[in-house]
Amino acid sequence: MNDEISRFGAVRLADLPEDLRERIGAIAEKSGFVPNVFLALGHRPDELRAFCDYHDALMERDSGLTKAERELVVVATSAANHCTYCVVAHGAILRVRAKDPQLADLVAANPCGAELDERRRAIVDLALSLTQDSALFGEHDLAAAREAGLSEDEIWDVGAITAFFAMSNRLAHLMALRPNDEFFLMGRVPRQR
Amino acid sequence: MNDEISRFGAVRLADLPEDLRERIGAIAEKSGFVPNVFLALGHRPDELRAFCDYHDALMERDSGLTKAERELVVVATSAANHCTYCVVAHGAILRVRAKDPQLADLVAANPCGAELDERRRAIVDLALSLTQDSALFGEHDLAAAREAGLSEDEIWDVGAITAFFAMSNRLAHLMALRPNDEFFLMGRVPRQR
Amino acid sequence: MNDEISRFGAVRLADLPEDLRERIGAIAEKSGFVPNVFLALGHRPDELRAFCDYHDALMERDSGLTKAERELVVVATSAANHCTYCVVAHGAILRVRAKDPQLADLVAANPCGAELDERRRAIVDLALSLTQDSALFGEHDLAAAREAGLSEDEIWDVGAITAFFAMSNRLAHLMALRPNDEFFLMGRVPRQR
Amino acid sequence: MNDEISRFGAVRLADLPEDLRERIGAIAEKSGFVPNVFLALGHRPDELRAFCDYHDALMERDSGLTKAERELVVVATSAANHCTYCVVAHGAILRVRAKDPQLADLVAANPCGAELDERRRAIVDLALSLTQDSALFGEHDLAAAREAGLSEDEIWDVGAITAFFAMSNRLAHLMALRPNDEFFLMGRVPRQR
Amino acid sequence: MNDEISRFGAVRLADLPEDLRERIGAIAEKSGFVPNVFLALGHRPDELRAFCDYHDALMERDSGLTKAERELVVVATSAANHCTYCVVAHGAILRVRAKDPQLADLVAANPCGAELDERRRAIVDLALSLTQDSALFGEHDLAAAREAGLSEDEIWDVGAITAFFAMSNRLAHLMALRPNDEFFLMGRVPRQR
Amino acid sequence: MNDEISRFGAVRLADLPEDLRERIGAIAEKSGFVPNVFLALGHRPDELRAFCDYHDALMERDSGLTKAERELVVVATSAANHCTYCVVAHGAILRVRAKDPQLADLVAANPCGAELDERRRAIVDLALSLTQDSALFGEHDLAAAREAGLSEDEIWDVGAITAFFAMSNRLAHLMALRPNDEFFLMGRVPRQR
Repeated sequence: MNDEISRFGAVRLADLPEDLRERIGAIAEKSGFVPNVFLALGHRPDELRAFCDYHDALMERDSGLTKAERELVVVATSAANHCTYCVVAHGAILRVRAKDPQLADLVAANPCGAELDERRRAIVDLALSLTQDSALFGEHDLAAAREAGLSEDEIWDVGAITAFFAMSNRLAHLMALRPNDEFFLMGRVPRQR
Repeated sequence: MNDEISRFGAVRLADLPEDLRERIGAIAEKSGFVPNVFLALGHRPDELRAFCDYHDALMERDSGLTKAERELVVVATSAANHCTYCVVAHGAILRVRAKDPQLADLVAANPCGAELDERRRAIVDLALSLTQDSALFGEHDLAAAREAGLSEDEIWDVGAITAFFAMSNRLAHLMALRPNDEFFLMGRVPRQR
Repeated sequence: MNDEISRFGAVRLADLPEDLRERIGAIAEKSGFVPNVFLALGHRPDELRAFCDYHDALMERDSGLTKAERELVVVATSAANHCTYCVVAHGAILRVRAKDPQLADLVAANPCGAELDERRRAIVDLALSLTQDSALFGEHDLAAAREAGLSEDEIWDVGAITAFFAMSNRLAHLMALRPNDEFFLMGRVPRQR
Repeated sequence: MNDEISRFGAVRLADLPEDLRERIGAIAEKSGFVPNVFLALGHRPDELRAFCDYHDALMERDSGLTKAERELVVVATSAANHCTYCVVAHGAILRVRAKDPQLADLVAANPCGAELDERRRAIVDLALSLTQDSALFGEHDLAAAREAGLSEDEIWDVGAITAFFAMSNRLAHLMALRPNDEFFLMGRVPRQR
Repeated sequence: MNDEISRFGAVRLADLPEDLRERIGAIAEKSGFVPNVFLALGHRPDELRAFCDYHDALMERDSGLTKAERELVVVATSAANHCTYCVVAHGAILRVRAKDPQLADLVAANPCGAELDERRRAIVDLALSLTQDSALFGEHDLAAAREAGLSEDEIWDVGAITAFFAMSNRLAHLMALRPNDEFFLMGRVPRQR
Repeated sequence: MNDEISRFGAVRLADLPEDLRERIGAIAEKSGFVPNVFLALGHRPDELRAFCDYHDALMERDSGLTKAERELVVVATSAANHCTYCVVAHGAILRVRAKDPQLADLVAANPCGAELDERRRAIVDLALSLTQDSALFGEHDLAAAREAGLSEDEIWDVGAITAFFAMSNRLAHLMALRPNDEFFLMGRVPRQR
């Protein structure tokens, strides 16, 4: 157990049920480290498994938004929710996916005001409208997204990813989840260094 | 497809993959109807499957909060988020689970002010603090919950259910999801009628 | 005195001055019970009398809005103010007046988002704009109401009823006024049952 | 009709029903002018009559709060609601009643922060808690008022006056009610001038 | 030191470095009194000097907005920030500069709703948009200002004055800065009295 | 003129009056680039000069807060105001001054929730209370700061820096000021690389 990662402690990779150990292990191998969220949710394997399934269904989907756009939704949503873990971790992934060392910081600092091209701005606006006062979400939000060229399928992607991170951000706040050191610099300097 | 249930249409039970058809079918048999959320999420079977898994891991768990207390968390969270589907549907389930025809309406009308016994009040307060401005969530919220006697496991239950419905509420707002007629009266009048 | 109805106690019908006893008695005869608000305000007969006069001038008026529309304004306003007594009591009256067992719950759960026909939506929007941040109320609110076909007289009705329940809701919050049990089921099931 | 006073026009004193003409006439004689609110509400005599009855029951009451304290509640409430008519008109009356040319301006500029003696601060805090987010009003607000020495009767006065001006402020915003010129200077300079 | 002026005390004019003593002395000679802000900031002469330089660069500038319009920006900004010192002091200067005894009170009571001519309304709207949620400030705010005829130079004046008083208002709140008695009546009565 | 830096254009270093050219030139020599804020404010030399004087009086002061603590105040304030330029630029300076590559990102993502030692937490809390709703700033804020050991002089430093950046943040929002590329990576990797 590691109290510095989460208020509710964290398991070690070896303590997870086999299917999760393999699944998270594969992520660790690719990244070079185990993202803390998996160890922190590990005390509830059923919840962790569903979390991973849902995450992958939304973030690894082949059609619809690009992978970079999906991470853009996450960073904007998490910035609006002031979720440190997700801003830092998914900011890193966005830098990598978008091959842009500044985009994540610009969106994190001011999601509603960052200067973005029309499509990205529409994606972020849609995410923010559902993040911040979802009771007011309505036809005008959808109309704006459609006008910027988003398909119904892409709109669903934005909405469902935003909703999923409304959950993730709150889990991270519940745990006071600490981002891994590796995330802070990832994607900021060219690979060869 | 049924546009009156959701902005994004709804599948029929028969259109779902077999595992989901059986799973949702079992719920329908027990309730007497298919709750609309399942048909509305059906156009994305992977997401629906993860949704059901996560929901069940949190709501059907044997230890920790009682089933009525879990529904109380849902109604308080959904009322704060003004989610019509979840307030109406889980209000009905709360009436049934708590065997109380008024509790859901009282919590829905004013979640932060409803007069509840100390344990229920602490559960609802914890849920609301994570629902409404989760960036401010902190040790004082946990301390208040512990002082009211909630265990770490129960605190996790409250937090994780609140987080899950932060997602569900936003999905419902995204879809403008319509509650089934059956929910409105469920649990209001004694069974024998 | 009955502390369970109000923080400031409640009188019995028999304790009221004759004019109020008769007036409230007539309501009780029609409803089958004395709505708690009258007993709770009874310790200040002059204020109760003015409250009843003002209420009736607004809610029993023959021209302008229909009776159901007046109750719709009350439910929307009271939901936005999270006033349990008024949501429950006037939700019941709205069910009866509009002959609709769902409308009140839909408006109460999400007044700004409930799907309503154009006229009802305009009425509720006008009420909410004056309820929530009245300092911003202005010509654009009136223009939207006029465009939906509301006359100046109807606009006044919406505004004045909204204002009156801005008061009533706060009185109920001051008292922690408890709704009568009868209101919860009223108008939900057909009369003959 | 005078459109400059109110969006909904204004009657002349002579156009009012006899009882109201006499009642408002007496106020005009004492003040030297007819406060605009009476002429602006005059198109609905039943509502104006109830408004006057309710106002007098709360503001002319002999026991409980002093008259200056009642006006203090009005100015604090109206400032929080940004109601120009009530801030200007009741600011004037507060200057006269409290024999203090600065108090109203200080409370109007920053009701929650104005430096006041303990009793006045408690009165204003109680009024603001019911004005601004009345759904959160609760025992802690009452406890603070009691600790500052307010009786239950005085607490009711503060609460009921606050509630009444939650209504009045909204009526004034509905009408864009214009304050009479006379109010701006009233109570600022010694009488003999 | 005078604790009644500021939480952090106040210097006497004679205690200031020579350049500031002369500069503030000249203001005192013109006004008939030393505005408290100068004595309260006097414990940090370098900050006071920069404050005066910045203030004069913005408020004494010859081209762009008129002097009355500059004060209008200050009153609107300070009202939105509930800064008692600036509302009272600059309200007085606005009365003098605009030769209008009511304008400052009307703007202070409800900056977003005060009825103003189109140019003044545009100036105040621009100031409020930058005062209240500056992260949302954007092209639509600039477009509205340009449509009302403001030049780029005038827009800068409004924005920079608003920004400067975002600072001044916070300094006054930090100090609980008390307005001089003289400000309350200044500009309310004709000079000859 | 360079429109990409600011909505209002930007001067070149060579276009500034001599004193500012030397002053900004010295900064550029030390940093290796000219921070955009100076070029963007350059169209108003008097304002730029006062801005620099005020900035230096607050940020270069020898006693009171350390230089790193001063930058901490700036990052917290600017994050709360969602000011991209100041978060990115002063985040960089904070990394350098505090010799900590993560602190700025943690504070920027969630200023009110970042885990900090007691003194830093107290500094940030004080800054946020004056940043976010300064009208509520009061003795309880000062008491909390004193309890954490801050002297009156240090409290002034926090308050005055917070106030100055309430201004700077709004100037940056007015201009849509773009951070220099150099800031994004500054202080993230050890110097020798």
